[in-house]
Amino acid sequence: MRIALDVMGGDNAPDAILSGALAAADLLGPAGADAAADDAHTVVLIGDRGIIEEGLEEGGLAGDPRYEIEATTEVIGMAESPTKALRGKSDSSIVRMAELGRGSARGGAGTVSADKACDAIISAGNTGACVAAAQMQLRRLPGVHRPGIAVVLPTFHGPVVVCDVGANPEPRAQHLHQYAHMASVYAERIIGVEDPKVSVMNIGGEEEKGTPLVRETNALCRGDEGLNYVGYVEGRELFEGKANVVVTEGFTGNVVLKLAEGLSAGIFKLIAHEIFETDPELAMKFEPVVKKIYAKHDYHEYGGAPLLGANGICMICHGSSEPRTIRNTIRNAIAYQKSGINEAIVERLGCSDHARGAGR
Amino acid sequence: MRIALDVMGGDNAPDAILSGALAAADLLGPAGADAAADDAHTVVLIGDRGIIEEGLEEGGLAGDPRYEIEATTEVIGMAESPTKALRGKSDSSIVRMAELGRGSARGGAGTVSADKACDAIISAGNTGACVAAAQMQLRRLPGVHRPGIAVVLPTFHGPVVVCDVGANPEPRAQHLHQYAHMASVYAERIIGVEDPKVSVMNIGGEEEKGTPLVRETNALCRGDEGLNYVGYVEGRELFEGKANVVVTEGFTGNVVLKLAEGLSAGIFKLIAHEIFETDPELAMKFEPVVKKIYAKHDYHEYGGAPLLGANGICMICHGSSEPRTIRNTIRNAIAYQKSGINEAIVERLGCSDHARGAGR
Repeated sequence: MRIALDVMGGDNAPDAILSGALAAADLLGPAGADAAADDAHTVVLIGDRGIIEEGLEEGGLAGDPRYEIEATTEVIGMAESPTKALRGKSDSSIVRMAELGRGSARGGAGTVSADKACDAIISAGNTGACVAAAQMQLRRLPGVHRPGIAVVLPTFHGPVVVCDVGANPEPRAQHLHQYAHMASVYAERIIGVEDPKVSVMNIGGEEEKGTPLVRETNALCRGDEGLNYVGYVEGRELFEGKANVVVTEGFTGNVVLKLAEGLSAGIFKLIAHEIFETDPELAMKFEPVVKKIYAKHDYHEYGGAPLLGANGICMICHGSSEPRTIRNTIRNAIAYQKSGINEAIVERLGCSDHARGAGR
Repeated sequence: MRIALDVMGGDNAPDAILSGALAAADLLGPAGADAAADDAHTVVLIGDRGIIEEGLEEGGLAGDPRYEIEATTEVIGMAESPTKALRGKSDSSIVRMAELGRGSARGGAGTVSADKACDAIISAGNTGACVAAAQMQLRRLPGVHRPGIAVVLPTFHGPVVVCDVGANPEPRAQHLHQYAHMASVYAERIIGVEDPKVSVMNIGGEEEKGTPLVRETNALCRGDEGLNYVGYVEGRELFEGKANVVVTEGFTGNVVLKLAEGLSAGIFKLIAHEIFETDPELAMKFEPVVKKIYAKHDYHEYGGAPLLGANGICMICHGSSEPRTIRNTIRNAIAYQKSGINEAIVERLGCSDHARGAGR
């Protein structure tokens, strides 16, 4: 498969992105293998030609056919307004990346010739711009109302998939109902959860609680035998193993995601501070414990978050992505295609009853 | 002042509630003091007469004029549907509590005679039922569109007031704009933050981000010189000291509050588990550190959350309230009245420009 990677987007770009791409060489199949083979993959590095050439040179991978260069001259900044940036920077790495994805999604009928088209696009850049560009170019899988971003949150009771976390801040209940299915397919095939328990985020457990949107989504999910629906989940229960999949509108989902990040970081900082005040020697002993926790519950492990429902594979990476985040995202993009997630989504949503397991 | 306390509501009720009420004796002024004196307060204990009498007896406070008994026979369970419970259980402690508050709020014109009326109501019971009963009986302060619950979240950079966390899941921008003012008054007078920095919770820092509700609220706050408005705050920044007051619709606010609780508890559990696995001896040394952190960042310290904008003082306590939570809430109710928060809110909202500091 062909993977389009935005080398210029992210807080640590371009170095961390390039390093991650080169560190993924072992995932791309043997150099010089038949490019049409199932396990032969190409990463298309999008961005400043000089920087990319230098990186390939330094990594000893110059001329390796598993890496292609797609030169662009513009970069969309992390804090730029997505709509303005997309309009103004047509030669940016994000716009080109989405166009490369489009070529594939539309059978090469886009602005990109069929031989250059990519099966997956990956960026750690401006999230709003990525999502907007991907929606514009890739469009939607047949039957999908609106794509949603799914993130995997590590918890004490195993990973939880939360969808949507920002692609769709004002969804209808039908969108959330589809997220339940799409995120279930993702949890099954990428995280390996069998028959994932699905819930709707709400502010209480009783049926009458919450907004009309939440209650309508609850009714749709409860009446759908294709879902292993377990009812509402409260903010507190997100970390208690009640559900494997949690659907919510993108506004709350995004706040949840960022709050979880900020609060975890804050608590560890607080503990480190307090331990150091109490006993500097204890602090040294505590450090390996924190490292072990980070290793086990590290969002970098899960790589980027897929834009589920897009007609193609689109992985949105965290702005602070490190080389291993990018490497893991490339691994996940390959796994995403190999496990046929998009085909399963189409099949599952195409069934009149959204039958559970129909897409397995 | 007279404080109506629901003895029957809460996970640890009635014991923890009664204990907390009795532990607050020193806050109520000297026994036998002139009841009309400014520092003489009465707690009206609402609930099962036998249980309350026994508690007063055991606490050596039977016959103490600072405690009155208001006998009720019904209890609204923590998981009951609020609307059904309020309709069905007219002799419940929550309904009676709200009625006692009403007598005061309406100058004794309610179902309760003027001499029994209370200035503040406190419950750790079914939150939905409390809020609904309070809204129904206390009504709103002049000029207030819709009351909102304000909680104080302890952070590394000091306490942050978040409003609303569940009273108003589908507000209009005008409601959120008023929350900015009401929560500012609360932060100033109860937490002691001078000229608090106000922000609106959003999913990005750029002006164009978020829902129409958020953008409209942003415009109202930005155009209001009466607020020390600092713009949007993201979930991550909630714990980074960017703002002292964060306004949001009750749905997201409630998810945030419960998520923060669940996640903190989860992280501490995780660390304890990991430390124990690494080195049981280290776990023993770590315990006092955790205790120190809990002592410093303990939501029990702040007691209940006020329903800002209610025509009276209504404090909603956490279901898991302990005796000291109740004691602290009684202390806060007294401070709330003494510092004239409701008068300041009315004055501030009454000013055409909502002038900052006008209510000081």
